[in-house]
Amino acid sequence: MQRAFVTGAAGFIASNLVDHLLAEGASVVGWDNLSTGQERFLASALTSPSFRLVRGDTLDREGMAAAMRGCDIVYHLAANADVRDGWNHPDKDLQQNTIATFHVLEAMRAAGVRRIVFSSTGSVYGEALVTPDRPTPETDAFPIQTSLYAASKVAGEALISAYAEGGQLDEAYIFRFVSILGERYTHGHVFDFYRQLLEHPDWLRILGDGRQRKSYLYVGDCISAIQRVVTLATAREAKHRTQVYNLGTPEYVEVNDSVRTLCTSLNLQPELRYTGGDRGWVGDNPFIFLDTRKIQATGWKPACTIREGLVRTLRWLESNRWVYDSRHPA
Amino acid sequence: MQRAFVTGAAGFIASNLVDHLLAEGASVVGWDNLSTGQERFLASALTSPSFRLVRGDTLDREGMAAAMRGCDIVYHLAANADVRDGWNHPDKDLQQNTIATFHVLEAMRAAGVRRIVFSSTGSVYGEALVTPDRPTPETDAFPIQTSLYAASKVAGEALISAYAEGGQLDEAYIFRFVSILGERYTHGHVFDFYRQLLEHPDWLRILGDGRQRKSYLYVGDCISAIQRVVTLATAREAKHRTQVYNLGTPEYVEVNDSVRTLCTSLNLQPELRYTGGDRGWVGDNPFIFLDTRKIQATGWKPACTIREGLVRTLRWLESNRWVYDSRHPA
Repeated sequence: MQRAFVTGAAGFIASNLVDHLLAEGASVVGWDNLSTGQERFLASALTSPSFRLVRGDTLDREGMAAAMRGCDIVYHLAANADVRDGWNHPDKDLQQNTIATFHVLEAMRAAGVRRIVFSSTGSVYGEALVTPDRPTPETDAFPIQTSLYAASKVAGEALISAYAEGGQLDEAYIFRFVSILGERYTHGHVFDFYRQLLEHPDWLRILGDGRQRKSYLYVGDCISAIQRVVTLATAREAKHRTQVYNLGTPEYVEVNDSVRTLCTSLNLQPELRYTGGDRGWVGDNPFIFLDTRKIQATGWKPACTIREGLVRTLRWLESNRWVYDSRHPA
Repeated sequence: MQRAFVTGAAGFIASNLVDHLLAEGASVVGWDNLSTGQERFLASALTSPSFRLVRGDTLDREGMAAAMRGCDIVYHLAANADVRDGWNHPDKDLQQNTIATFHVLEAMRAAGVRRIVFSSTGSVYGEALVTPDRPTPETDAFPIQTSLYAASKVAGEALISAYAEGGQLDEAYIFRFVSILGERYTHGHVFDFYRQLLEHPDWLRILGDGRQRKSYLYVGDCISAIQRVVTLATAREAKHRTQVYNLGTPEYVEVNDSVRTLCTSLNLQPELRYTGGDRGWVGDNPFIFLDTRKIQATGWKPACTIREGLVRTLRWLESNRWVYDSRHPA
C-alpha cells in the first residue's frame, strides 16, 4: 500500500487525489502552506487516521525532507497556477514552480524517496510549431514557450527528468494536463463566468473572440489516469525512467460552447461581450488539444465528457459559493 | 553600431566575442565575476576605449541593470559550464544558469534592453527520442533531459522565449552549441587529454569506450554565425520573436578520432586506457550531431573543419600552459 507525500494537498486537484488515495487504503502526508489551498477541502481527509497534514512551504527543503521520510512516492502538485498574470509578478513562477520543484527533488534525495508524480501542463507545447490543428503528441516538436507559467513547468519537467535519468530517482511520471474541471475547482473560465453571472446575470464578458478551442478533463478522470500509470509502474520496463503522459479527453470545445453549456444549465441568456482578438490574454494558446493515445494505451478512458465536466463544475460552484468570498486567485 | 553587454565576458567564448565586437567597431560592456573567467583573456580588449569591464555576478540584478543601461543588445554567455559534475553541487546549474538567466532578463526589462543572444547547448536534445543516428534539427521531439546542466539551459531557453513571446523582448536568439574549440579553450576533452599527456606522455585515460560520436565547432566560426544572425535580425520578420539555431559543423568525429589527431599532432603514441561503457559520464550523450541547415540557410558556413579546430586548440594550449596552473574547472 502506498505511503504518499502530496504537495499542495489542500488544492483543487491534490485534495481530490488525497481523498482517492485514502479511499484506496494508502497513508498520506499532505504538505501545504495554505496560501491558496483550502483546509476545508481536506475536511474529510482530516478525519482519517491515515492522513496527516503538515503546514509548510515547498521552498522549505529540510522541512519537506523530514515530513516525507518513510514515504515511497511523492505527488508534487503544489504550484503557482495563476497562468494569466505572470507579468505582474515574474518571480512567482520561478520561485513556486521551478525552484520549489528543485527543493522537492532535493528533499526526496535526502529522504530516500525515489518515485515522483508531477503535474505539468499542456501549455508546455507553446504554440505547436510543426503541424497545428491536430492533437499534440508527447513527442511534439521542441516548443517555444509563450508564458512564464509554462516556462516554469518546462523547467520543472527538465529537472525531474535530469534527476531520473541521472539515477537519482527510479520512476518519474510527468503528466501534461489540459484544464481540469470538477469539484473544488477554484480558478479558470467556469469560475470566472459563474462569478460574473452571479454579479450580473444579464451580460457576460468573454476574453478574446470566444473561438479559442480548448480541451478539458474531469478531475476524477485525471486522478484515475495518474493512478493507472502509477499502479502499472510503466517506467520500470521502459527505456527511460521518465515517462510523460498527456492527460485530456479526445475532444475539444470552443469557449463559446462552454458558455452555451453553462448558460443553458443556469437557464440564463446573458448578452455576450467579447474583448476581441484570437486569444484571451498574452500567452494564451488559442488551440489546446492533446493527443491522448499514450495514456489510453494503458487501458484508461475518461468517464466524463467535457460537457458533463462543465456541468459538474457548475453544480459544485452553485453549492459552494463560499469560494467566491475568500481570497482566491482568479 | 552595437552597444553590447556581454555576460561572462572573461570566459572562453565570450572573450573571443568581445574582441570580435570591438574589432567591428562596437562598444562593449563586459560583465564577469571572474570566478572562472580569466582577466588575461581580456588583455587586448582592456586597451580599447570602447570596452569597459564591470566585475559582478549574474545574480546581482540591480548591478547588471545599472551596467547595461544604454546598451542595445545583451549577449548572455555567462554560465556554469561544468557539465559532468552536476551531482556534486546540484544547486550550481540552477543558480548560475536558470536563476541567473532570469535576473539577466529582469535587468534587461529594467534597463529597457530588448534584444538578447543566449548560448544554449546541443545537450538540450537529451538523447534524441524519435530517430537517433541522424543530425538533430531544432524542431526535434520534445526531449527528456539527462543532465542538470542541460536542464538548466532548457529552463533558460524557456524563460527567454516566454519573455520574447510575452512582448518583453523584441528579438531573442538562442544558439544551441556543440562543443566549441579554439583559442582560450579551458575545459573539455582536449584540455583534459593534453593535461594528461603533459603529466604522463606514455598513456592516456579515455572516458567510456572512445566510440562516442561528437561534433565540434571552432570558436571563430561560432562567433561569425552569431553575428550573421544578429546582423540579419532574423527574428524581425519571423512569426516568433524567438529564433533558435543549432550551431555546429556538418560532420562529427569519434572521441578516438580526436585522440588520434591530438597524438599525431604531438608526435606521441600513448597507451590508450578506456574506462569502458558507451558514455563518458552519467548524462553524457554518446551521439551529438546537430542539423545545421537552418544556420547555413543564412549564408554562414564554418571556415574550420573539426580537425583544424582540434589542432588550433592544441596549439593554443601548448603556448598557454598557464591555464593548467590556475584553478580551472576541469
